[in-house]
Amino acid sequence: MGKAIPTVEGWHSQHMVFSMDFSAWNCFEAAEKEKARAELKAFLAELESMHQAKEGSYAFYDVNGYKGDLLLWILAPSLDELAKWERKFRRLTIASVLVQTYSYTSVTEVSAYVKAKLDVPEVDAKLYPCVPKDKYICFYNMTKKREGNDNWFMLPQEERGRMMREHGITGRPYLEILSEFTTGGVGLDDWEWGVTILSDDDIQFKKIVYDMRFEEASARYGIFSDFYVGTIIDDARFEEIFQ
Amino acid sequence: MGKAIPTVEGWHSQHMVFSMDFSAWNCFEAAEKEKARAELKAFLAELESMHQAKEGSYAFYDVNGYKGDLLLWILAPSLDELAKWERKFRRLTIASVLVQTYSYTSVTEVSAYVKAKLDVPEVDAKLYPCVPKDKYICFYNMTKKREGNDNWFMLPQEERGRMMREHGITGRPYLEILSEFTTGGVGLDDWEWGVTILSDDDIQFKKIVYDMRFEEASARYGIFSDFYVGTIIDDARFEEIFQ
Amino acid sequence: MGKAIPTVEGWHSQHMVFSMDFSAWNCFEAAEKEKARAELKAFLAELESMHQAKEGSYAFYDVNGYKGDLLLWILAPSLDELAKWERKFRRLTIASVLVQTYSYTSVTEVSAYVKAKLDVPEVDAKLYPCVPKDKYICFYNMTKKREGNDNWFMLPQEERGRMMREHGITGRPYLEILSEFTTGGVGLDDWEWGVTILSDDDIQFKKIVYDMRFEEASARYGIFSDFYVGTIIDDARFEEIFQ
Amino acid sequence: MGKAIPTVEGWHSQHMVFSMDFSAWNCFEAAEKEKARAELKAFLAELESMHQAKEGSYAFYDVNGYKGDLLLWILAPSLDELAKWERKFRRLTIASVLVQTYSYTSVTEVSAYVKAKLDVPEVDAKLYPCVPKDKYICFYNMTKKREGNDNWFMLPQEERGRMMREHGITGRPYLEILSEFTTGGVGLDDWEWGVTILSDDDIQFKKIVYDMRFEEASARYGIFSDFYVGTIIDDARFEEIFQ
Amino acid sequence: MGKAIPTVEGWHSQHMVFSMDFSAWNCFEAAEKEKARAELKAFLAELESMHQAKEGSYAFYDVNGYKGDLLLWILAPSLDELAKWERKFRRLTIASVLVQTYSYTSVTEVSAYVKAKLDVPEVDAKLYPCVPKDKYICFYNMTKKREGNDNWFMLPQEERGRMMREHGITGRPYLEILSEFTTGGVGLDDWEWGVTILSDDDIQFKKIVYDMRFEEASARYGIFSDFYVGTIIDDARFEEIFQ
Repeated sequence: MGKAIPTVEGWHSQHMVFSMDFSAWNCFEAAEKEKARAELKAFLAELESMHQAKEGSYAFYDVNGYKGDLLLWILAPSLDELAKWERKFRRLTIASVLVQTYSYTSVTEVSAYVKAKLDVPEVDAKLYPCVPKDKYICFYNMTKKREGNDNWFMLPQEERGRMMREHGITGRPYLEILSEFTTGGVGLDDWEWGVTILSDDDIQFKKIVYDMRFEEASARYGIFSDFYVGTIIDDARFEEIFQ
Repeated sequence: MGKAIPTVEGWHSQHMVFSMDFSAWNCFEAAEKEKARAELKAFLAELESMHQAKEGSYAFYDVNGYKGDLLLWILAPSLDELAKWERKFRRLTIASVLVQTYSYTSVTEVSAYVKAKLDVPEVDAKLYPCVPKDKYICFYNMTKKREGNDNWFMLPQEERGRMMREHGITGRPYLEILSEFTTGGVGLDDWEWGVTILSDDDIQFKKIVYDMRFEEASARYGIFSDFYVGTIIDDARFEEIFQ
Repeated sequence: MGKAIPTVEGWHSQHMVFSMDFSAWNCFEAAEKEKARAELKAFLAELESMHQAKEGSYAFYDVNGYKGDLLLWILAPSLDELAKWERKFRRLTIASVLVQTYSYTSVTEVSAYVKAKLDVPEVDAKLYPCVPKDKYICFYNMTKKREGNDNWFMLPQEERGRMMREHGITGRPYLEILSEFTTGGVGLDDWEWGVTILSDDDIQFKKIVYDMRFEEASARYGIFSDFYVGTIIDDARFEEIFQ
Repeated sequence: MGKAIPTVEGWHSQHMVFSMDFSAWNCFEAAEKEKARAELKAFLAELESMHQAKEGSYAFYDVNGYKGDLLLWILAPSLDELAKWERKFRRLTIASVLVQTYSYTSVTEVSAYVKAKLDVPEVDAKLYPCVPKDKYICFYNMTKKREGNDNWFMLPQEERGRMMREHGITGRPYLEILSEFTTGGVGLDDWEWGVTILSDDDIQFKKIVYDMRFEEASARYGIFSDFYVGTIIDDARFEEIFQ
Repeated sequence: MGKAIPTVEGWHSQHMVFSMDFSAWNCFEAAEKEKARAELKAFLAELESMHQAKEGSYAFYDVNGYKGDLLLWILAPSLDELAKWERKFRRLTIASVLVQTYSYTSVTEVSAYVKAKLDVPEVDAKLYPCVPKDKYICFYNMTKKREGNDNWFMLPQEERGRMMREHGITGRPYLEILSEFTTGGVGLDDWEWGVTILSDDDIQFKKIVYDMRFEEASARYGIFSDFYVGTIIDDARFEEIFQ
């Protein structure tokens, strides 16, 4: 029977997706809009300070399609503080035209298996990540299947180890053109893992996920959530969205 | 064929999750807010009296993410009284900005198997629990699978007993750093069991659930609901949330 | 291959669950509330007359949790009349603060198998039931599984008969402390059967459903809907709910 | 491997279910109500003309339960015209208190297998049906299962033919007391087929669907949608609903 | 074990479905309506210019049934620009009466397998398609099954190749009467592929999808989303819809 591999945890993580009601936003008067933009900028500046101080990190992206419009990802030291950040955001003036359509609460983690092969700075970079400001984001969740003969958690540890190594080999070449962050949500949220990929070339999201789908770890054992993709909200895009 | 193990029941239990509309709350005038806060405090004080008198118990937590904002858990002597508590809460002024997004109605229970190994005070502590005021909460539901060869209810009693014992062994070391309460909802609600874990270290929620997922009882037979995690609403947090 | 057992049908049946918006209700002025209460009482009195005249029957309960607040069950001679009763209720003043969250349309039935063992008054009691005014209600739906090797409708008739007899044996002792009504909805609604249990001791709902879950008929072949439980709305509770 | 049986298509078909907000309707003044009723009557008269001219057909029923209140079924020569009929209805004054909760877009069809056994008028009656004005309606959708060993589309044609013949034999006696219309929606809507049954005795809906559930074609291969049942909206019922 | 076939990608693609609130639209005054129509025409003219310049393409259709009313499909060079087109549309006056009910974000692709058999103009036509203005559209998504013995991604490459060739053979005769566009969404959206078919004869949608359902690639391995069908919004239809 299976046995859990020990893990070390770092920061707490919360991905949040919001839908924006542009008709409601258009009803704001110019001054109200200005106030809402200023408040949101101040909020993002606070996140940037935390990020600069390496006390946490964040990402803010413009999401495509009907699943939402804004993706806000926050990494912070505790569950308690994440809830405060979430509430602070939802109290902003802009939040009166936003609806939270999805979220994922998790923690950064390094498994004992991976840890043995990394030096201290590498482990630290995984536990306390500094999220880059790449042009595109891809976020999704994953759970390992437990159905009939396809039951990940009933596999012997070596079997799981072998598949995870293959997974690593497939992913390695991509690490030159994208950054990947895995967070664990078992016991904290519905899906077992969250995967966040950042790159200046969004076609790489398609290529890495497609390549991996043919690996046994994904083909037989992977269950995937909705996918959220988007473009970074830099200053120009901020003005365009919240005009 | 399987056979049910006899159980003894204690208090009735209802977990309720509510989403808060901060924009609507912000439209309240200062006096209205003050009134709403006072009413809610009085309601919580009533629950606290019941808890002190050991006639029931409760918990009130600040939930992370889009699944809700407030988790209110009430233990009371009857289904009838639980419905009255629920209605009383939903009639508070604050409830006009809340939507109930989830609930679970169940009863505390001790199975004959466990009961044989416990003395009277231990059984009483399980049937009439005194919920601690730990910093973090984790709540989820569970149902045993009945699919093809993975059918919990078709297993012989010894087989189920063996797996439940393993479950107990995995969980035991955690009992020093967390409290766990199981309530049964068969015939009362959709999921067969509710699991509520409280701890001052929320990483333990992840560790215990992950460890257990590799046990046969969970790996082959466990179906899990959404997970709700949050931080206790002490006086400071009450002011911060309902400001 | 399987073959359907002939059935005899009696009254038509409709279970309806409604959610109540207490904030909207609180906006009613005293006179409006009084009017709404009087209208609802008159509606219930009409149902009571029909029940007394043995031309139909009904039940009205206060439901726990987020799935709804009121459960109204009506038994009447035809589908046509049920639709009129439903519309009449939904036209009441109180209905402007209610949303129908669930319903189940079916008919009372006695199968040829059971009928052979009953005398005429017993068959009549099943086809034209007089719903008692017990303190608690439990209502849920059930469909027989048709998946791979667990396909109820592909079983030989003797096999199904054997399992239904076991089902009856498990249920029999409970009939002293609860009343159970089964209605059939094949071809009329999504679930194949509806089960309504009434008792002055709601713990019996848990015990009977749990006991039966270990029978092959449920363990291998039962698929269950959401469960609705509640307390009868007697005069005192009517005043408390609609205050 | 399977092979598709050729089909001939006739009219396009659209079933639409609408929920009615009686509170909103009650806010209409008498004159507005009168105007809304007159508009709806004129719309139904147009459908009736089309039906009389045998250029299409329709049905308008009062639906039981929470899934909807009105079922409008329209048969017309093209997809294009169906969309216009739908929009025309949704532009009526009454539509401001209606929400469309379901629809099914399909076409009447006769398969080569059935066609060989019918003469021209019988084929025409299936392709260009004249919907009767029976008291009750039952509408549902069906898709053939493709799971593991229960994969309809992988069966040899003779096997499928045999099961469809059995299906026909079970259904035949019912054709004296009900009318049945099958429309195909593959490539046009989510479910593969739509089944509409009309009868003056709604218990027949239960009996035919239950009898058929024990046939291999349904037991092993049938997946069913929600069921919608209702009563015809004749003049008296029109006044009662839209009073 | 399986291995991914290399692909070449072209434009980014986004399908969007919107529901229209005709009651809200009817509340617009004549001048507002005129302004909304003019804005929407200007937006469509911009898409048409992009299409004429072969820098992208688009389609705008009138959808049947409750799943939505308008289908807007845009092909553009990048994810970034698609998000801007989406936002531009959602900022139009008409968008205040629209709700986005579905979307699919993907890219045009040609697999190495297909590419080897095509000359450069053919590959270009697939990567940078010029969407025709046929009368009818059919849009749906597809994912390959990964369940038990029916696991597409565990099949050897030759096996998948054989099935895809059969798929091509079945589809070929239809290419004279319809146009088909496949886009890939792995890593970008929830479904693995999007299929858009255009034709002046919508019955062909039914025939091609039904024929293909009997192929092993679909019968054993195809999972299909909802289907969206509709009629092109030419000038006359524009006036009729937005009257």
